[in-house]
Amino acid sequence: MEDKIELITYQDILNAHKIIADHVHHTPLIPSINFKETLDANLFFKAELFQKIGSFKLRGVLNKLHNLTEEEKNVGVITVSSGNHAQSLAYTASKLDIHAVVIMPFFSAKNKVKKAKKFGAEVIQLEENADLMAVLNEIKKERGLTLVHPFDDPFIIAGQGTVGLEILQDSVIVPDYVFVPVGGGGLISGIATSIKLKHPQVKIIGVEPIGAAVMHKSLRKNEVATLDRVNSIADGLSAPFAGKYTFAHMKRFVDDIVLVSDDEIIEALRLLFVEANILAEPAGAAGFAAILQKKNEIEAGANVVCVLSGGNIDLHLLKKIIN
Amino acid sequence: MEDKIELITYQDILNAHKIIADHVHHTPLIPSINFKETLDANLFFKAELFQKIGSFKLRGVLNKLHNLTEEEKNVGVITVSSGNHAQSLAYTASKLDIHAVVIMPFFSAKNKVKKAKKFGAEVIQLEENADLMAVLNEIKKERGLTLVHPFDDPFIIAGQGTVGLEILQDSVIVPDYVFVPVGGGGLISGIATSIKLKHPQVKIIGVEPIGAAVMHKSLRKNEVATLDRVNSIADGLSAPFAGKYTFAHMKRFVDDIVLVSDDEIIEALRLLFVEANILAEPAGAAGFAAILQKKNEIEAGANVVCVLSGGNIDLHLLKKIIN
Repeated sequence: MEDKIELITYQDILNAHKIIADHVHHTPLIPSINFKETLDANLFFKAELFQKIGSFKLRGVLNKLHNLTEEEKNVGVITVSSGNHAQSLAYTASKLDIHAVVIMPFFSAKNKVKKAKKFGAEVIQLEENADLMAVLNEIKKERGLTLVHPFDDPFIIAGQGTVGLEILQDSVIVPDYVFVPVGGGGLISGIATSIKLKHPQVKIIGVEPIGAAVMHKSLRKNEVATLDRVNSIADGLSAPFAGKYTFAHMKRFVDDIVLVSDDEIIEALRLLFVEANILAEPAGAAGFAAILQKKNEIEAGANVVCVLSGGNIDLHLLKKIIN
Repeated sequence: MEDKIELITYQDILNAHKIIADHVHHTPLIPSINFKETLDANLFFKAELFQKIGSFKLRGVLNKLHNLTEEEKNVGVITVSSGNHAQSLAYTASKLDIHAVVIMPFFSAKNKVKKAKKFGAEVIQLEENADLMAVLNEIKKERGLTLVHPFDDPFIIAGQGTVGLEILQDSVIVPDYVFVPVGGGGLISGIATSIKLKHPQVKIIGVEPIGAAVMHKSLRKNEVATLDRVNSIADGLSAPFAGKYTFAHMKRFVDDIVLVSDDEIIEALRLLFVEANILAEPAGAAGFAAILQKKNEIEAGANVVCVLSGGNIDLHLLKKIIN
């Protein structure tokens, strides 16, 4: 099946860069010596948690919205998300004067619902056992809205790929490893494409929570998989299904997937803020958790980039972690 | 008195840059839109809290140590500090194979004593009512050590001035304001010199805690002042005396001093990590506290740089703040 999927090109990512560069932060690549005792490598944090709205999601959304037809823009867009994608879409659509409908699951945190509304989105929060996709499809059809998928869309992937361009631009030496958290796979698909097409020797390592390892399952079965349930502290990585576009890109460009436990994620998150003064969300810290897990397999002196994908941590969770 | 003090030159700062550039992180200038509702300005954080050892102090120390004579290097150096200066000196001296003696007051946190020792410094922790300067001078004389002052030294000031060079280098537009926390004044003296000599129109604003406003007092009295006691949550800004070099530089180049309360510092620190995912120490957050205090006086659309000078926060304090 994946054979029919056309992969995005390097030019697609350059085009995305041209469209979004003036509207996103070029986030810093921060060298760190705080973990030298643990890891004998040159560690760099790609601090995408300092992006506007606190995560990389803005990039893909901007690229997607800018590529809509005028008619599509006039009618509006729709998505389903309770997290960073919802916030980024609400924020960007409002800036571009596009009406955005965001379907949120029943368990969404109140402050996230409130924030998306504040940015100007029409938020529809569902009841406990509602079928998210069914509701989305119904409203989409009824109103003629365009879906802005959280990950499985070539424009979304190309937008997230600009993170890879920035990594290459800011690296004095081409990295040996790039660790990227994987939810639905949009971020890693974009980063892997932008880096591998220029430097095929760079190892791109995806990181999934043990309790939400849908891409690991997909790659193992060699088909787009789903999970009956997900269970991870990293809500940002808890996609219950892989995408056909992201699967195809990951199959082509990603070297390995590392699975991390919730405990490993929490420890990585804690170390990041105690030792490096950086406050990541669980999804954002997952890449660092994988680096810590694999520290003995990473060669001494290797150049390792860790993508910190987001920073919108729930304060209750943070309190629990440092107490 | 200050007339006799020779100010450092722009060339001194360029020389410092040449010496230290390969050994320090060029820290990111992070644009932020997280506070747009509060402040109608373009806000940039100079994130010196991501410097090695977690603060700007490394810069001055490196410049000072590299400018010692071979004999001075062989005999060793001494300082008094319980904070970031102690850690930076211990770390750098050890890298350069220079013996470092660090005098620490009785109240120094255990983990700070431990850390300085781990870096290889000889730590002498004093008893409660010991006269720090008397002990320092005695040991210095007895052993022929060279003092590495925490702030009042032209090489230290020139080293900290490299922060200003980086701000100018990374700013697309020359900033309108640069807010800098003031302890003994080494950081702001360096930054103000490097920026004002090229762009005299930039407003350089110093920030002191109400309970440790020695430079404010000095400038008001037009002489180097001391405080009988200091009382601030920002231990990094609690110098009880101004320096003659820093006083002279500040008198020449600093536009204004803003005083902030402990409550304002804590609120700034809290906002920084809740809204911007950045964990500063109280001293590091003081500049942002001043910006919040002066938000109605800063013109709409102004380009404001906030120097986040350090991030070594005590975890107990952090717990108190978020609970």
